[in-house]
Amino acid sequence: MNLEISSSDIKIDFTREGRQGFAEVIYGEGKSLKQLEEIFSLYLEKQHPVLFTRLQDDVAQVLSAKAQAGKVFLDDAKRTLAWYPEALPENFCDFEVALVSAGSSDQPVIDEAEMTLRHFGVKSYKVCDAGVAGIHRLLRHEEKLKSAAMCIVVAGMDGALPSVVGGLVGCPVVAVPTSVGYGASFGGVSALLSMLSSCASGLSVVNIDNGYGAAMAAVRLVKAMEAARQST
Amino acid sequence: MNLEISSSDIKIDFTREGRQGFAEVIYGEGKSLKQLEEIFSLYLEKQHPVLFTRLQDDVAQVLSAKAQAGKVFLDDAKRTLAWYPEALPENFCDFEVALVSAGSSDQPVIDEAEMTLRHFGVKSYKVCDAGVAGIHRLLRHEEKLKSAAMCIVVAGMDGALPSVVGGLVGCPVVAVPTSVGYGASFGGVSALLSMLSSCASGLSVVNIDNGYGAAMAAVRLVKAMEAARQST
Amino acid sequence: MNLEISSSDIKIDFTREGRQGFAEVIYGEGKSLKQLEEIFSLYLEKQHPVLFTRLQDDVAQVLSAKAQAGKVFLDDAKRTLAWYPEALPENFCDFEVALVSAGSSDQPVIDEAEMTLRHFGVKSYKVCDAGVAGIHRLLRHEEKLKSAAMCIVVAGMDGALPSVVGGLVGCPVVAVPTSVGYGASFGGVSALLSMLSSCASGLSVVNIDNGYGAAMAAVRLVKAMEAARQST
Amino acid sequence: MNLEISSSDIKIDFTREGRQGFAEVIYGEGKSLKQLEEIFSLYLEKQHPVLFTRLQDDVAQVLSAKAQAGKVFLDDAKRTLAWYPEALPENFCDFEVALVSAGSSDQPVIDEAEMTLRHFGVKSYKVCDAGVAGIHRLLRHEEKLKSAAMCIVVAGMDGALPSVVGGLVGCPVVAVPTSVGYGASFGGVSALLSMLSSCASGLSVVNIDNGYGAAMAAVRLVKAMEAARQST
Amino acid sequence: MNLEISSSDIKIDFTREGRQGFAEVIYGEGKSLKQLEEIFSLYLEKQHPVLFTRLQDDVAQVLSAKAQAGKVFLDDAKRTLAWYPEALPENFCDFEVALVSAGSSDQPVIDEAEMTLRHFGVKSYKVCDAGVAGIHRLLRHEEKLKSAAMCIVVAGMDGALPSVVGGLVGCPVVAVPTSVGYGASFGGVSALLSMLSSCASGLSVVNIDNGYGAAMAAVRLVKAMEAARQST
Amino acid sequence: MNLEISSSDIKIDFTREGRQGFAEVIYGEGKSLKQLEEIFSLYLEKQHPVLFTRLQDDVAQVLSAKAQAGKVFLDDAKRTLAWYPEALPENFCDFEVALVSAGSSDQPVIDEAEMTLRHFGVKSYKVCDAGVAGIHRLLRHEEKLKSAAMCIVVAGMDGALPSVVGGLVGCPVVAVPTSVGYGASFGGVSALLSMLSSCASGLSVVNIDNGYGAAMAAVRLVKAMEAARQST
Amino acid sequence: MNLEISSSDIKIDFTREGRQGFAEVIYGEGKSLKQLEEIFSLYLEKQHPVLFTRLQDDVAQVLSAKAQAGKVFLDDAKRTLAWYPEALPENFCDFEVALVSAGSSDQPVIDEAEMTLRHFGVKSYKVCDAGVAGIHRLLRHEEKLKSAAMCIVVAGMDGALPSVVGGLVGCPVVAVPTSVGYGASFGGVSALLSMLSSCASGLSVVNIDNGYGAAMAAVRLVKAMEAARQST
Amino acid sequence: MNLEISSSDIKIDFTREGRQGFAEVIYGEGKSLKQLEEIFSLYLEKQHPVLFTRLQDDVAQVLSAKAQAGKVFLDDAKRTLAWYPEALPENFCDFEVALVSAGSSDQPVIDEAEMTLRHFGVKSYKVCDAGVAGIHRLLRHEEKLKSAAMCIVVAGMDGALPSVVGGLVGCPVVAVPTSVGYGASFGGVSALLSMLSSCASGLSVVNIDNGYGAAMAAVRLVKAMEAARQST
Repeated sequence: MNLEISSSDIKIDFTREGRQGFAEVIYGEGKSLKQLEEIFSLYLEKQHPVLFTRLQDDVAQVLSAKAQAGKVFLDDAKRTLAWYPEALPENFCDFEVALVSAGSSDQPVIDEAEMTLRHFGVKSYKVCDAGVAGIHRLLRHEEKLKSAAMCIVVAGMDGALPSVVGGLVGCPVVAVPTSVGYGASFGGVSALLSMLSSCASGLSVVNIDNGYGAAMAAVRLVKAMEAARQST
Repeated sequence: MNLEISSSDIKIDFTREGRQGFAEVIYGEGKSLKQLEEIFSLYLEKQHPVLFTRLQDDVAQVLSAKAQAGKVFLDDAKRTLAWYPEALPENFCDFEVALVSAGSSDQPVIDEAEMTLRHFGVKSYKVCDAGVAGIHRLLRHEEKLKSAAMCIVVAGMDGALPSVVGGLVGCPVVAVPTSVGYGASFGGVSALLSMLSSCASGLSVVNIDNGYGAAMAAVRLVKAMEAARQST
Repeated sequence: MNLEISSSDIKIDFTREGRQGFAEVIYGEGKSLKQLEEIFSLYLEKQHPVLFTRLQDDVAQVLSAKAQAGKVFLDDAKRTLAWYPEALPENFCDFEVALVSAGSSDQPVIDEAEMTLRHFGVKSYKVCDAGVAGIHRLLRHEEKLKSAAMCIVVAGMDGALPSVVGGLVGCPVVAVPTSVGYGASFGGVSALLSMLSSCASGLSVVNIDNGYGAAMAAVRLVKAMEAARQST
Repeated sequence: MNLEISSSDIKIDFTREGRQGFAEVIYGEGKSLKQLEEIFSLYLEKQHPVLFTRLQDDVAQVLSAKAQAGKVFLDDAKRTLAWYPEALPENFCDFEVALVSAGSSDQPVIDEAEMTLRHFGVKSYKVCDAGVAGIHRLLRHEEKLKSAAMCIVVAGMDGALPSVVGGLVGCPVVAVPTSVGYGASFGGVSALLSMLSSCASGLSVVNIDNGYGAAMAAVRLVKAMEAARQST
Repeated sequence: MNLEISSSDIKIDFTREGRQGFAEVIYGEGKSLKQLEEIFSLYLEKQHPVLFTRLQDDVAQVLSAKAQAGKVFLDDAKRTLAWYPEALPENFCDFEVALVSAGSSDQPVIDEAEMTLRHFGVKSYKVCDAGVAGIHRLLRHEEKLKSAAMCIVVAGMDGALPSVVGGLVGCPVVAVPTSVGYGASFGGVSALLSMLSSCASGLSVVNIDNGYGAAMAAVRLVKAMEAARQST
Repeated sequence: MNLEISSSDIKIDFTREGRQGFAEVIYGEGKSLKQLEEIFSLYLEKQHPVLFTRLQDDVAQVLSAKAQAGKVFLDDAKRTLAWYPEALPENFCDFEVALVSAGSSDQPVIDEAEMTLRHFGVKSYKVCDAGVAGIHRLLRHEEKLKSAAMCIVVAGMDGALPSVVGGLVGCPVVAVPTSVGYGASFGGVSALLSMLSSCASGLSVVNIDNGYGAAMAAVRLVKAMEAARQST
Repeated sequence: MNLEISSSDIKIDFTREGRQGFAEVIYGEGKSLKQLEEIFSLYLEKQHPVLFTRLQDDVAQVLSAKAQAGKVFLDDAKRTLAWYPEALPENFCDFEVALVSAGSSDQPVIDEAEMTLRHFGVKSYKVCDAGVAGIHRLLRHEEKLKSAAMCIVVAGMDGALPSVVGGLVGCPVVAVPTSVGYGASFGGVSALLSMLSSCASGLSVVNIDNGYGAAMAAVRLVKAMEAARQST
Repeated sequence: MNLEISSSDIKIDFTREGRQGFAEVIYGEGKSLKQLEEIFSLYLEKQHPVLFTRLQDDVAQVLSAKAQAGKVFLDDAKRTLAWYPEALPENFCDFEVALVSAGSSDQPVIDEAEMTLRHFGVKSYKVCDAGVAGIHRLLRHEEKLKSAAMCIVVAGMDGALPSVVGGLVGCPVVAVPTSVGYGASFGGVSALLSMLSSCASGLSVVNIDNGYGAAMAAVRLVKAMEAARQST
């Protein structure tokens, strides 16, 4: 007696890599488990690597169980899942991205960025727990930060860390506000506004908790740098 | 034929100093010139010192002209006016308040705080143009900051400076967001939210551009410290 | 087949006390249970007192169970946990902080402030349920309020209480908005804005529900007063 | 060559008084001078009393000049204008409304309310400059407040005054937030939210600076009381 | 080993009725079950009627079970609970309040208002499901609305209903926005703003979902009317 | 001992179809299960088709079980339920509405629109997963879009899709923002504001996730077109 | 010595009419006078009709003066300017759009809509000053409203009018919020939110004060209706 | 008798170029003319190139007049001023930045970006008036966009353009929201939020109207690319 109204409309854009230089990534939030399973099946069938972000509840575990071969990678928070038919892809160049975080509550965002960079073949290293309320902790890492091709700076609460890092280094800096905090931090809005209003010049910003987006900005940049290096 | 509807209702609370330890200050915004002149006359008549804040347009000049004797002090922006029947009041103790600012656009707020402190007999010194995007500029002043009884830290845009100062010193720190900035700084709201969400502990915050309020917090504090000193 | 991506990055800043005068406190929100257990282990190992705030769900109970010796203190709401290897620390001076609250729904914030003060060796006493809609209840406590070194005033809804207290006493006053209320109180925003716009001069404000922050402002202040007392 | 596109569409609802018990009032903001003059002419022609609110720039003066007979009343701020063919209307009953204000910057709103009450034949008296930061000033007027049929309480900044008045009196209380303040008072929004979240029960609120609206609420109430009085 | 930090601070203001004319009501949100049980015990002990609002989860049921004698009244949503040692209190006068609602989703707010009115001895009657998108449904009730001493108008979504009712009747009108709606209704904010900006004059507004507050405004009003009636 | 306070006030407006051209639809959010069952019973009794939207939790299943005869339709998300005594109603004309969506997370909104159109006898077809970040995917459908009587364009996140569609086609376009996204997408507010500010002219917008509302705008339009067609 | 950095980049899209069915309109705000004069010259040169909206200050007058032949039309507020080489364009069909407004302060928005409709050859008629606070004024026009092809409903303040109109008529309704009002009407935001949350189904909304946008929605609709009419 | 309270605190950080790779730029807003003249004098004295942004009123003209030798560059809006002792600096590499704008009202932001790039020796070219409501205009430039080292995409209103460009090219993209628009575009907030929520991956965003900030992000990037090129 019940009639199902929506038939499947899932389409995967397997040609984007050729067109734009990097493959599609699957955003998990708002998609039903049924939709996500259908999507994963298409990748498994093609034996094509895939990255899922923002998986909710226990969806990551359900998907993991589906992969009978290949390699599955999961972050601690079980929100980001990568699958590779064989080994992880090679890094395509030697440039390294620094992932800087203010506190250990920002870890899930750092993890999303790190997995995305690795998925697209970009090297990274971490400088964690370097919040500005203990500025000497940050300054200890000054040389390490200056050696990066680019800095991704992740901070919640006051969002002050990117302003300080932006004043220390000359390379591109992308700031990621996180939803860490309470009350007047409004789920990351305070950090976001602080970063957009930064007194450090040339800082650009991505959405709250968007570790994935910052990593993609880095992928675009590192690709441009590698092309420049090879152009000579 | 026109009938004026509002008769004068101006009352000055000349007993507040006895009751609470500090005299009333006159907030200029929203009061008509007629009201402000009437208020000033009452003070001149009593030969009682007075501080006006937030005077608008050319009101400060008009009031200055009214004072035929005594001393008038005006800030650069012509928003704050103090009048004393004779000399400036003595400082009532030796504790000093540090006034720290991020950039030269924050000057009017620093000036309001400085004039208020002086009006209530509290010493202060300035550490200007110490924004976090050039962290080495701030660190040069570390010792100077550590010697203060309290730090008033004024910053617009990202509002990041108080977080860093709060992590450097152990004394009380009051943060003042300023309306310096544009777009997503929303007239000081970004700086305000950043300060309220600061990762430095024990920081407290006053309203946007409220140099007067921060100075009054310092007056309350320095009075308590002086009482403690004398209590032994 | 699953590969864990984030290795432990927990670092405790055991030198902050020497540097700034008060030890680090562990903010629980956003940290995973695994991270919090790891942190607690480091403190237990060192036999170093520790204060956790904003613990969620049943984390406080799990941590309590870990402490096989020493003393655990928990608030009613099981959000704040303190652990001491032996007895509670001594109070380092005789100044007392008044904790004033508007209603009994503000209790968890008062508790967080009280436990923080006690953790850092500062005396306090409470004046509860003194909301302005029954102003005579508050005025009964006028003398008690005037005897404090500082007042921490906690209120939700209209946030009106600090304005009244600020006009009664001459000592420093820190206002804490709480998320008590509904609809147009927007989780404490109404109280926060009201406090920032207070007509009482020299009031400063901390984040919504931030009993911990207000207590730290008091710790900074009482340290300054005690130093002043000893300076003579 | 230019063609005017809008012909006059002005209609005055001269029957509202019969239908609802009180005549239409003309809201000046957003109406062109041409529209307002046309409206005034219709009233002058009918020799019908009229009240204009929110007149801007020098519109009030221009309209005043049009009235060649009868009586014009203007507030200090030249925003509210009343015209009567002969004398002011009689008060229709003996109930009195108390107009309570926090500070002298709230005067224009008190004036708008007072002129509106008088226009509709309702008595009022003022209790000015009674802000909560000097609570003893307010308590001096306790008896005066308790004798009113209703209290209209006007306050900017923290908007705390109505909560205190609401707890003192048992009669109806209408709160009017004003746009007095700066920064985080957001043009009266802080006061508005504080009043909507008041811990005093049975308080109701009108729009920011809406002295007219509060007065109309009083007119409705006093009419109901007078009808009750006459019903026996 | 665990030490409880907060001792009981519950105080009931049993003298408010004498002072202000109506007894205290207990706001349930944010109070722990332990606090609420303690409060209820104090009332049961004194055999004093009591009204609880905003009870959450299954608290109302737990409290109901505590009352071994007397009468318990509960609304459909189990959020409002009244207890009387014997029968319901008598209505103290004959004036009636109209409770007008836009749709059946507004029922819990209407119920809270109705129970509050009854608790304080005020008669009421309902005009439900009269939203403006079917204006003829409302107009059918025009006479019924015109016979009320006061109208409490409850609406979510567009909040348009009070503007229409305010234009139909001459008696006092209090508008209650409800959190009914989704998306850009922002939990009742759209309805609240619409009501505050109403083009009907003399409308006043209470907080979102605040059926209790509107009822208390009515109690204040009806008391004033009854006093007027008896004054002759 | 418990006394239920609210008796049933459910009324169904079975005459709206005659009056306005389309029957009432039942909005499920905020209505109790008891209220919804009562409503459904009235429809079943009359053997009258009915559409429920925004059913929450497992309400749709409970209602489905009530229908012992006729046909029930449910969307994938179990939020929208239609019941027909016999077959689905015939489409009343041949005009077709295009339902365009940006991504597969927007599916529940598309489904709500599709079921509403079908309920009121309007044909539709879907163009899914056509987000602007892959503009060539959209342009592939240019002809299909141009053949529609009207386009309903559904998008979350940046809300950019309607601007592009609005520039491609000349027919009416209604934009529906969805709550898909996180952080600075604020539950659909970013998409809503982007659509309201669209640089494509003649676009109109409905509430966030309001697939039902967009469909009703289409029903109004298609009725007008069919009337025009028949008028010749 | 000064070097101008920006050369002219003005391009007019004279092919849009062919592509989409209606020509480009020039949005005046934010364009310099120099840019606008350059644009007008291009139209004059081609002898092509043109419509400018949102002209600021005295730009409209300056442009009018440039037109040495043809016909110029200006609204009362001098914000909208149309120029035609010869006569006004013919109306392309007989369908009529109703322009409904709440008050005379909404006139400039009605004017912008009316001039736009006329520019694109669509007939319209006005129903002005029909705000809901005097519902009988609106109901007098019920028949007139029901005869329209579509209703454009313009209202500021509470934005309640479109909900009532939407419930009266069965044709498409587009709501236009206006910035009329003060305080909590937030420059039209209250009206906008109220309209988006309307309880009348099938209402769609355009940006604040966007008379132009509503008219373009009507142009799209009337074109579709005329095509339908001719299709038979 | 007047005593000036603030002595000059201007400091120029002439060492930043050595430290970070690019010299300080002077932000004009909020600085007094006196401060700006003092700053310019320091540069003129040192014969050091300087860039001023956000000059207000006629400050740019006053400063221009001060420069008696060297070259002054001014944008059309007289907000950005550059001065060079001799000729413009050489471009330091061959990479080119594309400056893409949606409409001609965005010109001042494009100009600020272009002057900043030129000041720091970076080549750029413009793709103007390419808004998404005429997508074919944008697609004409697809090849030109793909040849850039980086795209700076400037758009107001719906902020949709960067999402489309981000999907077309593989190089880094920085989005700049502009304050072009009215009503619900909230001075650029709608465009900002839309860009932060973009469905195109790897887009990063700067503050509203911040052409300078986007250019500095490009300077950082191009420096990294040039270093990469030379590293081989």
